[in-house]
Amino acid sequence: MLIRLTPGIDPHTHQYITTGVIDTKFGLPIATGQAEEAVDAVLRARNLELVGFHAHIGSQIFDLEAFRRAVDICLDFVGQAARRRGFEFREFSPGGGLGIPYLAEDPAPAVADYVDVICRAVQAKLTQWGLPRPRLIVEPGRSIVGPAGVAVYRVGAVKTIPGVRTYVAVDGGMADNIRPALYGARYEVIVANRAGELPTGPVTVVGKYCESGDILVRNIDLPPVEAGDLLALPVAGAYCLAMASNYNAALKPAVVLVSGGQARLIRRRETYEDLMALDVGE
Amino acid sequence: MLIRLTPGIDPHTHQYITTGVIDTKFGLPIATGQAEEAVDAVLRARNLELVGFHAHIGSQIFDLEAFRRAVDICLDFVGQAARRRGFEFREFSPGGGLGIPYLAEDPAPAVADYVDVICRAVQAKLTQWGLPRPRLIVEPGRSIVGPAGVAVYRVGAVKTIPGVRTYVAVDGGMADNIRPALYGARYEVIVANRAGELPTGPVTVVGKYCESGDILVRNIDLPPVEAGDLLALPVAGAYCLAMASNYNAALKPAVVLVSGGQARLIRRRETYEDLMALDVGE
Repeated sequence: MLIRLTPGIDPHTHQYITTGVIDTKFGLPIATGQAEEAVDAVLRARNLELVGFHAHIGSQIFDLEAFRRAVDICLDFVGQAARRRGFEFREFSPGGGLGIPYLAEDPAPAVADYVDVICRAVQAKLTQWGLPRPRLIVEPGRSIVGPAGVAVYRVGAVKTIPGVRTYVAVDGGMADNIRPALYGARYEVIVANRAGELPTGPVTVVGKYCESGDILVRNIDLPPVEAGDLLALPVAGAYCLAMASNYNAALKPAVVLVSGGQARLIRRRETYEDLMALDVGE
Repeated sequence: MLIRLTPGIDPHTHQYITTGVIDTKFGLPIATGQAEEAVDAVLRARNLELVGFHAHIGSQIFDLEAFRRAVDICLDFVGQAARRRGFEFREFSPGGGLGIPYLAEDPAPAVADYVDVICRAVQAKLTQWGLPRPRLIVEPGRSIVGPAGVAVYRVGAVKTIPGVRTYVAVDGGMADNIRPALYGARYEVIVANRAGELPTGPVTVVGKYCESGDILVRNIDLPPVEAGDLLALPVAGAYCLAMASNYNAALKPAVVLVSGGQARLIRRRETYEDLMALDVGE
């Protein structure tokens, strides 16, 4: 087993996805001595095998320094614990959390820089503590699948409230992407069938669900949009369909794999029969 | 058809479920003249029949005065429009939004008072404008199904961080109830199998999902809780399962109808086969 350490790091991301501070449900805090107690308990237990340690300081992190500090704190703990208890350190994971650019200006680190920071930090601490080189695991799930997905919506009504705002309503929203409502997440969006046209002013793209919070993108400059247009929202491959609901009895969208001009359906659109499948009759 | 009016009312509820202000995706604002234009357009259209009007000022409303103001504003509009355009006013719905007590101290209005305020307001405006009595529709869905549901969770790990907080983790959370994370919604909770025991101090009840924001109830006084205990969270019948997701590949819970000591399964627990049902093979 790996012991989940809580290093006590604030990676300056949204508080909902900050997971490495002391006051969190995740892991065993190093600072309180509870991580050390866990090491002792695992070493004493005849049915458990201590393979290594992992941590996760949060998600959507742009500051690589936070990863370096997490590695330092975790491996200082491992080094001290290994000296005292003499276990074999075989695996280490500083978790995931590599941020990706939802917005064009987001300062997302390059993968090479991320790997470099982590590997250098790990190597320095292995040398300092005389630890063997463990299997090193990173978990950059969002940075792999996030940019791989594009959500495509069809425009329904367009409502301009004079002097206030123009709302562009689409056939999806918070049921297929809860991130804007839940985290205040921001996205780019383009009008896929007018991608070459120049923007003429800001609109707010809203979903079809029965809540005012069902806003996908606020105040984004788009070309003139009308019913039937297709809006493409990039970086929708992570935490969208995975967190999707059937709110308002909405059906989850189909997923199409596209590569080299070829398209293949890999997940079919949900049906009302699917929605009813769990109901038990009299 | 009914025309959805936007009366321009702020019912002082969470901004995500405030739907009657001017700057909303919902409805046609009275103040901007767009509602009047809609009446004209519907009356001109040969394929549409104007049956009446509806509105919805928001959800979880405790202040009945907000309903009265909404009725007044809507029926002043209808009265003026009917005088000018001479249509038959047959249906009116001031929507839903009747608040319910998630917390013991929530000042939820009695149904009788809610009905009284709306009926008196409607009658007064019918008299004032000489309108016929329409079919009156209210939509208090949450107040019917919300209190009818109780979510039952089983306790897993209990983690006390000395001097900081005790976390009680359960086998559910933000995938079956997104309301605390999404709206900051608050709930009561009781330890169902220790309901007679006295509370000994505050704990924070958290879900099993991979986010720090997956907190069901913060700082609630409970008796000592241990793994295997059952936590009952009342008023879970609305906007919980209806907004549920399969986040972290979680399976949606079963639903059991209980009445007079009898229990009947009305929705079976989801299976991994259900989760995979939409996937399309090669």
